[in-house]
Amino acid sequence: MKDSTVTKYVNDIQDAIKRHNQFLITTHIRVDGDALGSELALYHALRQMGKSVTIANNSSIPRIFEFMTHNTNIFIYPEIPKEHPEVVFVLDCPTMERLGKTQKIIPSNATIINIDHHVSSEYFGNINWVASDVCATGEIMLNLLRAMKIDVTPDIATALYVAIVTDTGRFVHSNTTPEALRAAAFLIEQGANHLEISKHIYNANSFHQIRLQSLALDTLKLHMKNQVATLWLTNKMLEKTNVNALDTHAFADIPVSIDNVSVGVLLREMAKHNRVKVSLRSRNGYDVNAVAKRFGGGGHKYAAGCEVNGDIDVVQQLILDVLKTMLFREK
Amino acid sequence: MKDSTVTKYVNDIQDAIKRHNQFLITTHIRVDGDALGSELALYHALRQMGKSVTIANNSSIPRIFEFMTHNTNIFIYPEIPKEHPEVVFVLDCPTMERLGKTQKIIPSNATIINIDHHVSSEYFGNINWVASDVCATGEIMLNLLRAMKIDVTPDIATALYVAIVTDTGRFVHSNTTPEALRAAAFLIEQGANHLEISKHIYNANSFHQIRLQSLALDTLKLHMKNQVATLWLTNKMLEKTNVNALDTHAFADIPVSIDNVSVGVLLREMAKHNRVKVSLRSRNGYDVNAVAKRFGGGGHKYAAGCEVNGDIDVVQQLILDVLKTMLFREK
Repeated sequence: MKDSTVTKYVNDIQDAIKRHNQFLITTHIRVDGDALGSELALYHALRQMGKSVTIANNSSIPRIFEFMTHNTNIFIYPEIPKEHPEVVFVLDCPTMERLGKTQKIIPSNATIINIDHHVSSEYFGNINWVASDVCATGEIMLNLLRAMKIDVTPDIATALYVAIVTDTGRFVHSNTTPEALRAAAFLIEQGANHLEISKHIYNANSFHQIRLQSLALDTLKLHMKNQVATLWLTNKMLEKTNVNALDTHAFADIPVSIDNVSVGVLLREMAKHNRVKVSLRSRNGYDVNAVAKRFGGGGHKYAAGCEVNGDIDVVQQLILDVLKTMLFREK
Repeated sequence: MKDSTVTKYVNDIQDAIKRHNQFLITTHIRVDGDALGSELALYHALRQMGKSVTIANNSSIPRIFEFMTHNTNIFIYPEIPKEHPEVVFVLDCPTMERLGKTQKIIPSNATIINIDHHVSSEYFGNINWVASDVCATGEIMLNLLRAMKIDVTPDIATALYVAIVTDTGRFVHSNTTPEALRAAAFLIEQGANHLEISKHIYNANSFHQIRLQSLALDTLKLHMKNQVATLWLTNKMLEKTNVNALDTHAFADIPVSIDNVSVGVLLREMAKHNRVKVSLRSRNGYDVNAVAKRFGGGGHKYAAGCEVNGDIDVVQQLILDVLKTMLFREK
């Protein structure tokens, strides 16, 4: 991104902030580390500037991120803030639809500022700072706050470190750039305690989750000459171990972590009878977004998802059939 | 570390390199990523300088690191190099004893250059560059090579990235400093392909390892008000899943990753009957090095190990008793 472009965005955003007092920050459904970290950093920055600001999201905060939400005002729909926002920051969210139900609380006359790193952004805002070459929306936020001369306090540094460490998958995904690592270095210097952060996010498996993992690993199977791996989470397993489906996100990364596997599939029975959540992960150039789209889902090239009706074994076969036709056709 | 100190080490080492032609590089038993990465980086650097150089280690290379050993000459004891080394680089190794059997092949008249980041170093070399404030021996090696104006080729960058990423536990251990992250950024710019590296090191679980993990997780137990967690690997499990004990290193990190657990214990039956390898991991200030020492072992404050005679359940009880006396005494 050229410096001149950054300056233009920063000026426009700074101008909008100056002219208004009531701010709302929101993000995509199923809040993740980058979404929440970017929201919290901006929240603290606006408070530093003496503004009135609230965060409102469609989905509740996953347990592992709760440690960084102290002293903040987060509404989870249908609970909504009383204030009427003049400016709405929509962060890390490519379309208005992905906001879920918080779409409804955005006044039609509000100025919308869209800050995002998704290549699929629909530029729905009055201002759109979309940079798909950065590792996380948190990295854009860091650039914004530094350009605006905001004091990067330990709270802000922590929030942005979480954004970067989670969206880069602990600095291993393809978006791990030298800039991402240098941003992380800077944030540690500003007071992000990476040890505390890791403890909460990566080393706080509950005993129940480990028991669930043991049950799930028993269902691991390889298919199509070991290029595809599947893993199951059934309602029975979730009940037996008393784990909330919200906290099973990381299981999707297990099948694709196996040597030689290019596509990993996690199949999870949903609370709704006869419906299965399918999470696809890939590497080596295989595009699972296209596969998820076939079932009305979507996502990124290397991480996508969909929901399919049917028993878990039937859904698995459907997915395998499509994988076979679309990605692993015999030459 | 002060610049003047670095200059002194660099000058001494450069001087020794200039005056000699036959080099041997070695490291501690049970080679890890930092040990091997530092060896390989130095190996390539000395070759760049037109020197004759070999690597000789006590232990074979774990499967996950094999991808970076192409075009290198590594001897595993009892196989030993023919050449008579004039200079021996001992890397990442606090004492001569920790070299294992490669101690025997060091000529008594060789110049020993000890480069290390272990606080427990015994300064056994003719030159000792010991910096316990850096994340990995690989970070010292990077400083050395840059100061010596060595061209940091992609092979060198890859080796040093592996050293840093493994010794910081993927940038989460307490040794993850801003300098470590900036070194990683620089190494990516020099051609370290972090995606390839992660694929080999973190996403190449064999199907067998996953099966072993499933069996092992079944043995997980919490003790002392959930402050201690234990995990077992029995010979039966290893045989059943056909996993080499060499490739079970990562299991030691599982017990301590559980919420509220401060000390994690991995107990593994060794090939030798009635002998158990105990790997201890801790956090929140608990010193497991002291515990391991009680059983004739050692390591670092947060990661240590020992070997104990007895059946696995008996050894577990011995360890728990000592943990109770030394670390978790009721107040």
